[in-house]
Amino acid sequence: MSSRITPRSKDYAQWYQDVIAEAELAEVAGVVKGCMVIRPHGFAIWEAIQQDLDRRFKATGHQNAYFPLLIPMSFIEKEAEHVEGFAPELAVVTHAGGKELEESYVIRPTSETIIGHFFAKWIDSWRDLPLLINQWCNVVRWELRTRLFLRTSEFLWQEGHTAHATHAEALEEQRRMLDIYRDSCHELMAMPVIRGTKSANERFAGAVDTQTIEAMMQDGKALQSGTSHDLGQNFGKAFNVMFQNKDGEREYVWQTSWGASTRLVGAVIMSHSDDDGLVLPPRLAPIHVAIVPIYRKDDERSAVLEAAGKVAEELRADGLSVRVDDREGMNPGAKYYDWERKGVPLRLELGPRDLESQSVMSKLRIAEVNEKGRPVKEALPLEGIGARVGQILDGFQQFLFDRALARQVENTRTLDTWDDFTACFEDGDSGFVWAHWDGTTETELAIKEATKATLRCVALPGDGPDPEPGACIKTGKPSAQRVLFAKAY
Amino acid sequence: MSSRITPRSKDYAQWYQDVIAEAELAEVAGVVKGCMVIRPHGFAIWEAIQQDLDRRFKATGHQNAYFPLLIPMSFIEKEAEHVEGFAPELAVVTHAGGKELEESYVIRPTSETIIGHFFAKWIDSWRDLPLLINQWCNVVRWELRTRLFLRTSEFLWQEGHTAHATHAEALEEQRRMLDIYRDSCHELMAMPVIRGTKSANERFAGAVDTQTIEAMMQDGKALQSGTSHDLGQNFGKAFNVMFQNKDGEREYVWQTSWGASTRLVGAVIMSHSDDDGLVLPPRLAPIHVAIVPIYRKDDERSAVLEAAGKVAEELRADGLSVRVDDREGMNPGAKYYDWERKGVPLRLELGPRDLESQSVMSKLRIAEVNEKGRPVKEALPLEGIGARVGQILDGFQQFLFDRALARQVENTRTLDTWDDFTACFEDGDSGFVWAHWDGTTETELAIKEATKATLRCVALPGDGPDPEPGACIKTGKPSAQRVLFAKAY
Repeated sequence: MSSRITPRSKDYAQWYQDVIAEAELAEVAGVVKGCMVIRPHGFAIWEAIQQDLDRRFKATGHQNAYFPLLIPMSFIEKEAEHVEGFAPELAVVTHAGGKELEESYVIRPTSETIIGHFFAKWIDSWRDLPLLINQWCNVVRWELRTRLFLRTSEFLWQEGHTAHATHAEALEEQRRMLDIYRDSCHELMAMPVIRGTKSANERFAGAVDTQTIEAMMQDGKALQSGTSHDLGQNFGKAFNVMFQNKDGEREYVWQTSWGASTRLVGAVIMSHSDDDGLVLPPRLAPIHVAIVPIYRKDDERSAVLEAAGKVAEELRADGLSVRVDDREGMNPGAKYYDWERKGVPLRLELGPRDLESQSVMSKLRIAEVNEKGRPVKEALPLEGIGARVGQILDGFQQFLFDRALARQVENTRTLDTWDDFTACFEDGDSGFVWAHWDGTTETELAIKEATKATLRCVALPGDGPDPEPGACIKTGKPSAQRVLFAKAY
Repeated sequence: MSSRITPRSKDYAQWYQDVIAEAELAEVAGVVKGCMVIRPHGFAIWEAIQQDLDRRFKATGHQNAYFPLLIPMSFIEKEAEHVEGFAPELAVVTHAGGKELEESYVIRPTSETIIGHFFAKWIDSWRDLPLLINQWCNVVRWELRTRLFLRTSEFLWQEGHTAHATHAEALEEQRRMLDIYRDSCHELMAMPVIRGTKSANERFAGAVDTQTIEAMMQDGKALQSGTSHDLGQNFGKAFNVMFQNKDGEREYVWQTSWGASTRLVGAVIMSHSDDDGLVLPPRLAPIHVAIVPIYRKDDERSAVLEAAGKVAEELRADGLSVRVDDREGMNPGAKYYDWERKGVPLRLELGPRDLESQSVMSKLRIAEVNEKGRPVKEALPLEGIGARVGQILDGFQQFLFDRALARQVENTRTLDTWDDFTACFEDGDSGFVWAHWDGTTETELAIKEATKATLRCVALPGDGPDPEPGACIKTGKPSAQRVLFAKAY
């Protein structure tokens, strides 16, 4: 059935590409270096993520706006660390309207600079704060080694930009948005994540502090799935964003920014899919239920299609997205395969015998297997089908989260010796490791050099082992707490 | 009250800018040539338009996707008329990732070319058709004379791209989407439009036929508000998009494309606003109701705010967006002014006396005026407030459409002599004119040269006067039917 998908055990990277190709999620643009085309089924997943995040942003007082795609080159250069971080990745517009431009523009790699410029115009008094803005848009960061969804020269994302009167308020905001990313990963994407703080070396260029959510993929690698930055007053000073406080004094604002991107689609694919193709958590799935009518004769056909239509109607009334697969010239088996590889959570098979028994045969995208090695199907009575399907999908959502969490727990180790650490990362599927670190960039880079493992984060309280002092796994120097290491995408 | 907004009668163009500035809808980017920043209140209007159109697109079987921002220069050159039309407006990326590129990319001015490339990969058989794709994105067309929302170097839009097995199906699609634009203008934006066909001279570069919807602004000028193109097989041939038909023969597909943009926000502003600022039809308004609490003493304050909160809750339960304006240090009059200029359709004033009488004072954004020249307010009982406010808003939506339609009818003339025609367009507020035309580009350009009026469209049946033959208003040559002339944005 799934011969067109390379098994994970054989070639994980090829498996990922095959899953995407077979589900028609996206493809490499080819003619535009490092870019991709997001096909309808992939884009529908992104739309579901967008809607969920957008609802959460608005519920916490944020408003959407839109700023120019093009940024004057001089803006990028105003914040010293920012330009250093982004300069190598910039795409530059030098000509427009048939003429060479006096000053080149860069295509936004992120928008702190241009938004800083407008914040300076809009903010005057403490009454204008907090200013809570979000933008859904495309950004370009020229990449040489690309991978669909995970790393492309152009990608879609949202970038939040906020300004506050105090550092404490900015820190609250930074954490609030990190938690929103975590909640969306857990509740919508069924993807457990660990929240933490990035090391200085992995920090956003221009930030005082970067917080991250890290998810574990099926090969044990980490995927950074969203970041939230405390920008301090760095961009406030670079763009002169000042406000008059309640005491009548002029101060620089405190800013945050936070972003999540189409990378999340890649994270979802890698979290849940299997050798049969895409697996999607129901809350994220563009199609919840595929109904495959089964018939041989024409009179069977009309009765079966009519019944399928009625079931679809009832499920749609419960807010589900349902596809009745009435394609001609395609046998049921081929239809099963098609919806499996596209990650539709639940399939219903409806034939003349089901009609007689007033039931329908159901098959979950990931089903238990019976003693003959066949997937278990369950007959559902047509009476009350809406409620039953709702329960099944809720259960499947929970199953996927639990399975991903179990995998994360199982593949996470606490190590104390350099030998164990290097041995662990020699392995292909190395997983997460909690280990002590002396807090220096030098050691962090030496560990990466030796093992290819990177410091993912210093976990927030509750997301990692309880802090206890120890000795750095590499240098033996004192360490305040274990931090998270993993190979990463 | 509205001293910061220049009256329309004094300077219409300045009025438009003032309305936008006072409602905080958008502003000129300044630092990025010809671009604008869409501020939250303006972006919320665009989001409402997006949601409405997106729902209509999906209900007619279209799926969203995303294609690269950057297009190889060679792609643009493949369709001869297309490159001729767009070459002067292109923004060009020559450098990326720190290097000069071997082939330059243009930032998409529209995506027929890059999408044609992928259609060729995806389409193989008649079973793959129709292919119905839409993309929400930004585009760049370098403009020298810009105007907020109406004409900017970068704008946001949607572009639909479809491929069909027959020309007849493509023509059906072209018309279906034109009608969707018309329906959204009428039902959501309360903006009457005339549907018609563009002349060869005004056709989309590369299309066989362009259909348009034209709206009349308050100064009598026309605003093209959406277009739908029959591309014939032009792009199919340029990008080799072929399919095998049911007889096993290879044929080029028939394509359409259709687009509407943030320009619609400008159209709405110019259709309904007045000298007090923005006016929005309720279905489009980000905030439907502003509740202004009125109190002097502290004990009044808590009772009034509590009651306002209850009213807000009841209205929200009916799906309305409500703002309780509890800002301190701002008197009610200043709050009234603020919500008026922002175009909130209905204001509710709630004070201790209203509480006693268990009612609330309501004021529509455009209210009748009493004998003293004061706007009429209406006391609404708190009991059943939700249903009553719903009625009032529905009535206001209809009022705005009727008013705009009456204005269009009143400012539309049927003219038969060149003297009347030129005299009409010497006037500043010249309106729409139905006149005979000999069908040649030469005459069309001569009329424009002499009067600044352009040929807006040949109306579709039912959207203009019944076709009857006549003599061209300029040349006297035979004409099959009257066509629509107007000065335009």
